[in-house]
Amino acid sequence: MTETPAPKTPLLDRVAGPADLGALSDRDLRQLADELRSETIHAVSRTGGHLGAGLGVIELTVALHAVFDTPHDKLIWDVSHQCYPHKILTGRRARMDTIRQKGGLSGFTKRTESPHDPFGAAHASTSISAALGFAMARELGAGDVGDAIAVIGDGALTGGMAYEALNHAGHLGKRLIVILNDNEMSIAPPVGAMSAYLTRLYTGGPFQDLKAAAKGAVGFLPPPFQEGARRAKEMLKGMTIGGTLFEELGFSYVGPVDGHDMDSLLAVLRTVRSRATGPTLIHAITRKGKGFRPAESARDGGHATARFDVATGAQDKAPSNAPSYTSVFAKTLLQEAERDDRIVAVTAAMPDGTGLNLFAERFPARCFDVGIAEQHGVTFCAGLAAAGMKPFCAIYSTFLQRGYDQVVHDVALQGLPVRFAIDRAGLVGADGPTHAGSFDVAFMANLPGMVVMAAADEAELRHMTATAAAYDAGPIAFRFPRGEGVGVEMPERGTPLEIGRGRMIHAGERVAILSFGARLAEVEAARERLRARGIDPTVADARFAKPLDRELILALARDHEALITVEEGAVGGFGSHVAQLLAEEGVFDDGLRFRSMVLPDSFIDQAGPQHMYADAKLSAADIERKVLEVLGVGVIERRA
Amino acid sequence: MTETPAPKTPLLDRVAGPADLGALSDRDLRQLADELRSETIHAVSRTGGHLGAGLGVIELTVALHAVFDTPHDKLIWDVSHQCYPHKILTGRRARMDTIRQKGGLSGFTKRTESPHDPFGAAHASTSISAALGFAMARELGAGDVGDAIAVIGDGALTGGMAYEALNHAGHLGKRLIVILNDNEMSIAPPVGAMSAYLTRLYTGGPFQDLKAAAKGAVGFLPPPFQEGARRAKEMLKGMTIGGTLFEELGFSYVGPVDGHDMDSLLAVLRTVRSRATGPTLIHAITRKGKGFRPAESARDGGHATARFDVATGAQDKAPSNAPSYTSVFAKTLLQEAERDDRIVAVTAAMPDGTGLNLFAERFPARCFDVGIAEQHGVTFCAGLAAAGMKPFCAIYSTFLQRGYDQVVHDVALQGLPVRFAIDRAGLVGADGPTHAGSFDVAFMANLPGMVVMAAADEAELRHMTATAAAYDAGPIAFRFPRGEGVGVEMPERGTPLEIGRGRMIHAGERVAILSFGARLAEVEAARERLRARGIDPTVADARFAKPLDRELILALARDHEALITVEEGAVGGFGSHVAQLLAEEGVFDDGLRFRSMVLPDSFIDQAGPQHMYADAKLSAADIERKVLEVLGVGVIERRA
Repeated sequence: MTETPAPKTPLLDRVAGPADLGALSDRDLRQLADELRSETIHAVSRTGGHLGAGLGVIELTVALHAVFDTPHDKLIWDVSHQCYPHKILTGRRARMDTIRQKGGLSGFTKRTESPHDPFGAAHASTSISAALGFAMARELGAGDVGDAIAVIGDGALTGGMAYEALNHAGHLGKRLIVILNDNEMSIAPPVGAMSAYLTRLYTGGPFQDLKAAAKGAVGFLPPPFQEGARRAKEMLKGMTIGGTLFEELGFSYVGPVDGHDMDSLLAVLRTVRSRATGPTLIHAITRKGKGFRPAESARDGGHATARFDVATGAQDKAPSNAPSYTSVFAKTLLQEAERDDRIVAVTAAMPDGTGLNLFAERFPARCFDVGIAEQHGVTFCAGLAAAGMKPFCAIYSTFLQRGYDQVVHDVALQGLPVRFAIDRAGLVGADGPTHAGSFDVAFMANLPGMVVMAAADEAELRHMTATAAAYDAGPIAFRFPRGEGVGVEMPERGTPLEIGRGRMIHAGERVAILSFGARLAEVEAARERLRARGIDPTVADARFAKPLDRELILALARDHEALITVEEGAVGGFGSHVAQLLAEEGVFDDGLRFRSMVLPDSFIDQAGPQHMYADAKLSAADIERKVLEVLGVGVIERRA
Repeated sequence: MTETPAPKTPLLDRVAGPADLGALSDRDLRQLADELRSETIHAVSRTGGHLGAGLGVIELTVALHAVFDTPHDKLIWDVSHQCYPHKILTGRRARMDTIRQKGGLSGFTKRTESPHDPFGAAHASTSISAALGFAMARELGAGDVGDAIAVIGDGALTGGMAYEALNHAGHLGKRLIVILNDNEMSIAPPVGAMSAYLTRLYTGGPFQDLKAAAKGAVGFLPPPFQEGARRAKEMLKGMTIGGTLFEELGFSYVGPVDGHDMDSLLAVLRTVRSRATGPTLIHAITRKGKGFRPAESARDGGHATARFDVATGAQDKAPSNAPSYTSVFAKTLLQEAERDDRIVAVTAAMPDGTGLNLFAERFPARCFDVGIAEQHGVTFCAGLAAAGMKPFCAIYSTFLQRGYDQVVHDVALQGLPVRFAIDRAGLVGADGPTHAGSFDVAFMANLPGMVVMAAADEAELRHMTATAAAYDAGPIAFRFPRGEGVGVEMPERGTPLEIGRGRMIHAGERVAILSFGARLAEVEAARERLRARGIDPTVADARFAKPLDRELILALARDHEALITVEEGAVGGFGSHVAQLLAEEGVFDDGLRFRSMVLPDSFIDQAGPQHMYADAKLSAADIERKVLEVLGVGVIERRA
């Protein structure tokens, strides 16, 4: 791939931080936006990352920083994958080539990274709640809090917590600015009645001529605050051609405004800044991927990309050696669904990420995208299951946290056979700690009646998907990691596993390593290293964290000096269940060198997954070291 | 308290199930409603329980069962504390005197209790999601699924998942019936802009004369379905005087209708049943506690009650021996807030239940009721903390599950000092398994940077509240049970505890019992029983599940033959963290009789808390038995 030369950015080169925007004319700001767009494309072409969302908010980013005064004003980007231009303008331009890499900038906003990031994000729909927290702290006299501004996409507005926050903000009635960045596109096109409603707000009529309205209004309004407040409200109302729904929730609605027309944006933001007295929603229409043809024309608006050629948009993707776990799950589910028309599939706004786009193509009526709405998605599955269907609820581990109460209260308590396909389990790489799937085994396996599996490789995933399809006695979950499988031979079809049975991989001696999930390859690598030292450990794959294979585990404990569990999850999960079994059975009474290797008690910053697992001390070398340590052989460092 | 004689209910006496309502005239149905109201009051007067909500839906319950055909049609009550009249009509009248008692009827709907309860509930805002699941299963050909009807209160409509479900249902466009039971009252008066909106819908004008509209419409409509569908929509639209917000979300809005006018209700339900083709929302205005003066005039609409005298409404409450944990928390928080004006308090629609009503009276500007909106509530706290305030987020353990992702993503990941006051931890008695706080220690203590405490008694709770007020380095949580304290002497003020330090209660020998939380009284009772047998165990109170008091725990392990942890929570919590520490430190290598007493792997049905803990094998007798067993002394039954 040829490296494109850096774009010429004479104005941007003079911007060290947002304060420098004050000196620029509106004309300069327009030029700055153009330069910022080129710079953003250039930066992401060299690193890969989130592109489309950032390009959609170039003008908005410049206008916000020109009109508001961060970090005194609190600018909160929802999800925040659209924050690259913001990072470039807030002193992080020089480090953009480190983004999403080990030791580099995060791909999201992050409090520890800059005072211009007052609230980090990565999951959707949190920004209005956080902004309202800042706003009410300001009302109570907290120091150094000016305006609180949330920028939220129309996709994120399908999340219930955004509505909860609007409802509360409208009730409180204090000044708060919400910018609805409406590009009709989150990662996939948003579903839901709200999306259709937003579209109705701006189709069938031209954009408001907000420049004139705002200019006129500002000019005419008398300075005194009391009078201004009343008139401001009327004036803001005059700037709208719809938005009743938001008005009903207590917001002043302004818009729709063309989010790529810098003059309109500046006029609206300046007016709102000088005049708003209560909760105000600015409806900006933008285009994801704006200004970069390959992104604009991509189905997902150029959501995320590998490194690419700026001239052609061609991405520099490494060839894959094995099918991804996601695709194995998706294809297996299709196989099962061909044979069983009770199988239905549910995703929360992640049809591509979960692989359910395949399912939706083949069985459109049996596939449901509920929006960014995991709470509803889980209970919707519970309803489907109660009616006799076989719902597969495909949600990333980190996002399943959003539906946890529904898993407990609607699924587990009622023993309903919902199948949870938990993708992105364990550490996930470039997306970093906000996307890590660290806690699902702990929070699922202690629920009565829940079956919890983890796939050691892509063939196991095929069997576990088939197991979930066949199992109808209660809820069942299976987790699998992000990325490619390990390249094992694939069975043509999945074969249902016996519930609660693990498998022996290799019978050795002295030490048994009991793996749960996709660390098995590292465990086997550790075994190879140990054999070179004359130690031949037993290796087993637990398959189930619940119900545990008591027979296997007690036999391993009985027949070895030491038993080590390995998992890609936090304490409280598989290893803790094993420890509870061993304690209850009195296995510790007479001594057992038991260790449980889990994720450490810290959030692991982004890096390649291998690096993250090395940081987490869960690599083959770490497993080898643990075995040596527990046997008291050749230990150099006893404990870190 | 004098027992009031049972009311005369000649019609109700002839109703064995909903099918019997078909034979009744509209006039009979009106009478049946009156009898059902008397019967409900009579039943609850003898048992205590939820009263006000049920009285508010008497007419609705009769009308729904008269018009629809359960269990073929699926009637889903949101929260379902209003289900007592429904239970009386669906074959459970004779068992109403067992409600909320051990072995008796649940206080909520429950799938295992009746085919007329197609989906259980107890947490709010789930009904539309579940009903949509049934509706889509019907569309896909699932057997024996007719109409899906959700009855949801205006309070529950503040929960984001209800909005997520409306958004999805409006998008799908299939027939689904939502009845908005608007009594301007959940447990507390609902807050939020939505509530104000609903009020605007029915104030300032009379109720629609829906009888005439419905009758006329039915009479005029031609029978053919195709044509009927189109006209039905128009006709339904003709039955509304507002509801734009719901219309914008894709629902046909019908109402508002007087929810106590049986003729109107029957007319509307019959029309909707015969004509609705898509999602339809019926807005019924009701009064909580309707028809029973003491409930109508109570601030909470007679939400829940002890046994009472029907004539006077006087409740038969047992005198308390000690202050409740809730009141100790609330009063201590007030003490701290008097000294520190950065302290603010947040509740999710539970000002009375959490004791924050006291705080709201004293510091109205510093107390926030966010509605039934735990997701928003947690992130709102994170925003407040990021702005330098000291937010106390007071949420029951079971409802904190609703905000779990926000705890992980917005609070823990950012290390923000939000204080979680977790009430109703452990088993809670009459409300049963849906309200049990079983999982919080497991799902909180494995979050990096989270401090997790549990109060052994009410004095400890005072100290822990003060600890949380003083601690500003990151998030901190403390849990405490429902009900009265144990009657210990109360310190005037709380004293901040040293983070991560437990305390020795009694130095004994051979066995150490390490308690975490309010089982300490049972542990001490067990010790008394053991001393009678000549065994004098050491007793310690861990105070912290995170960070663990390593020094204390390792000393206990070193100095005793056996170490037993005791907690009011599921596996994966305190005991699992202790086991992980002991394993890492090699304590098991040479043998330690370690046991961890946790809640069993089953949901425990309602009963008095003491009975529930006996069922859970966490009583003093169980602890005694565990000690004897682990020492091999006088063991009769080795393991259950």
